[in-house]
Amino acid sequence: MSYYKHGGDIYTFNKIIDFSSNINPLEMPENIKNAIIENIDLYGNFPDPLYRELREKIAEFENVNFNKVVCGNGLSEMIYKTIIAINPKKTLIMEPCFSEYAEALKIIKSKIERYTLKDENDFYFTEEIFELDFSGFDLVIISNPNNPTGIAYEKEFILNILEYLDPETFLIIDEGYNNFLESSIDYTANSHLDEYPNVIILRSFSHMYKMAGLRLGYALFGDFSIALKAARMLQPWNISVVAAKCGIAALDEVEFVKNSVKTISEYREFMKQELSSIVEKVYDSRANYIFFKHNSSNLSKQLKDHNILIRNCENFIGLNKNYYRIAIKNMEENLYFLDILKKITYNFCS
Amino acid sequence: MSYYKHGGDIYTFNKIIDFSSNINPLEMPENIKNAIIENIDLYGNFPDPLYRELREKIAEFENVNFNKVVCGNGLSEMIYKTIIAINPKKTLIMEPCFSEYAEALKIIKSKIERYTLKDENDFYFTEEIFELDFSGFDLVIISNPNNPTGIAYEKEFILNILEYLDPETFLIIDEGYNNFLESSIDYTANSHLDEYPNVIILRSFSHMYKMAGLRLGYALFGDFSIALKAARMLQPWNISVVAAKCGIAALDEVEFVKNSVKTISEYREFMKQELSSIVEKVYDSRANYIFFKHNSSNLSKQLKDHNILIRNCENFIGLNKNYYRIAIKNMEENLYFLDILKKITYNFCS
Repeated sequence: MSYYKHGGDIYTFNKIIDFSSNINPLEMPENIKNAIIENIDLYGNFPDPLYRELREKIAEFENVNFNKVVCGNGLSEMIYKTIIAINPKKTLIMEPCFSEYAEALKIIKSKIERYTLKDENDFYFTEEIFELDFSGFDLVIISNPNNPTGIAYEKEFILNILEYLDPETFLIIDEGYNNFLESSIDYTANSHLDEYPNVIILRSFSHMYKMAGLRLGYALFGDFSIALKAARMLQPWNISVVAAKCGIAALDEVEFVKNSVKTISEYREFMKQELSSIVEKVYDSRANYIFFKHNSSNLSKQLKDHNILIRNCENFIGLNKNYYRIAIKNMEENLYFLDILKKITYNFCS
Repeated sequence: MSYYKHGGDIYTFNKIIDFSSNINPLEMPENIKNAIIENIDLYGNFPDPLYRELREKIAEFENVNFNKVVCGNGLSEMIYKTIIAINPKKTLIMEPCFSEYAEALKIIKSKIERYTLKDENDFYFTEEIFELDFSGFDLVIISNPNNPTGIAYEKEFILNILEYLDPETFLIIDEGYNNFLESSIDYTANSHLDEYPNVIILRSFSHMYKMAGLRLGYALFGDFSIALKAARMLQPWNISVVAAKCGIAALDEVEFVKNSVKTISEYREFMKQELSSIVEKVYDSRANYIFFKHNSSNLSKQLKDHNILIRNCENFIGLNKNYYRIAIKNMEENLYFLDILKKITYNFCS
């Protein structure tokens, strides 16, 4: 069963340092660890099928209506269920993009078209986007910040796209990494759900709160009826009690998020600076990972020989073997990575 | 979002004693609690996408090939993914049966026919089953022991059905409650997977191991290619690391299972005896719940006024408002239930 193609497969390799999965390098907050342990006597019961306590907490945190919040077994589940609920005949994906969107679209046999961001524009959108003909698309998918590039688009840009779209065309905004952005509020469309019933925002607890192994994500829907439709797609009890309790605890961790963003941003800017003198090109990631281009198309394998796992971006649409993504990890690991990368690069170039 | 229709909704009602959800009344084993706490540092990472350690443990426990084991986010997820993988045009459900099977079949627009077990036969199968024309069915679904009746069918009976079926007709056997049966090995078809590639067995960790809130179930497939197809239906990382670790710990709990079966069987037989003098009819459940018929069609509501939640079986096919299911709980709760039931029944009858 070798059909796995994302990052984070630390189970196949021993003693690996995993730069392929974008997990916060800080420790899981004590508050979340306590939630796991304190609620242990509840794990024998089935979860609340409506996940009311969790959804109320998210609604309060996002300042949106409770009935616009639907929770999933990781953001991945919400990708599938949202797309099945919308059931678009024709979809436009802004590429590069997390490949599960296309997988979900294939299940419902949606026609897929791609708008591909270009290296010559440093993977930023240009005004060209407003020359596109969006009519005829039932759904447009964009990630903000983009994965794998880390490029973030300010809210105004997203709102401009929304103004430009037919009200019948849904826009899924994958904000899975929004909480790693400095002044993240300037990049999220969460305060515009009531204005735009065609918006769906997807978010994750995995990377910031170190809950990737617990599986929790959610979607915020502009339209109540689509939220209900997506909720009805979910099998009963799709989220564990432990994930729900940890999600509730996580949303109180405002200081942890602030510290994480500050620390990771410092590390990221340092790493971008260092990398810029080693690799072919470093892009302007604002997230907790860095996207770069390297002369070697064999870098993943070379690094694996040094127990380093990175994300080769070859299987993203619009990219190739020379593009790579690395997570920001703690400084000891970051420096080890730079050290090995230099050795490989200079051997390779010589 | 009031579309919930199973048992166990303890979240809507305060201070309720929940007889509607069939959870083991014994404490969760220490070994599983320890697994939750000891592995806490792993929850920041994404799970192994292939769940190798868990599937190896299950394969060893069930004495089946590793590649025939597919794990789900609860047995519920495996119902959906198995049915989508088989994609039957025409399905026969042995009713009464857990309603999620029909829900899953509706998604893929399978034609559904029902064979309904009868009260006049105490909900046992009779030889009539071997007079049915199974030809033309792509899938037959049976639960053993049956939910909600608790009637268990010995392995020989299941094997007779298999001999009678076309090899092209799949048989899903829901063995979700098998581990509550005394001499459970006499009731499972798990040692016949290699003989019958058309068999799929579904199992759950929820009820016996008190892991309902952690979400873990699995399917055992007679046919490798169907197993692979079902696995490919699953979204990435469908099971949490905590559920996987607890599942591994649970399968070592042989003594706990023995003690649970012994204790629950004693309680169950006592309760059946007591109930038989109060209610209209008590059926021969061998599982951790009791199915009975009561003159009052309003019993659920009457019991709710005394903070008791039971499963009204009205929404099972072939049953009506006079059929009920209760879990076996600890003796204090069981006796409280009997006490309240007597009061209600005698008031009702007088």
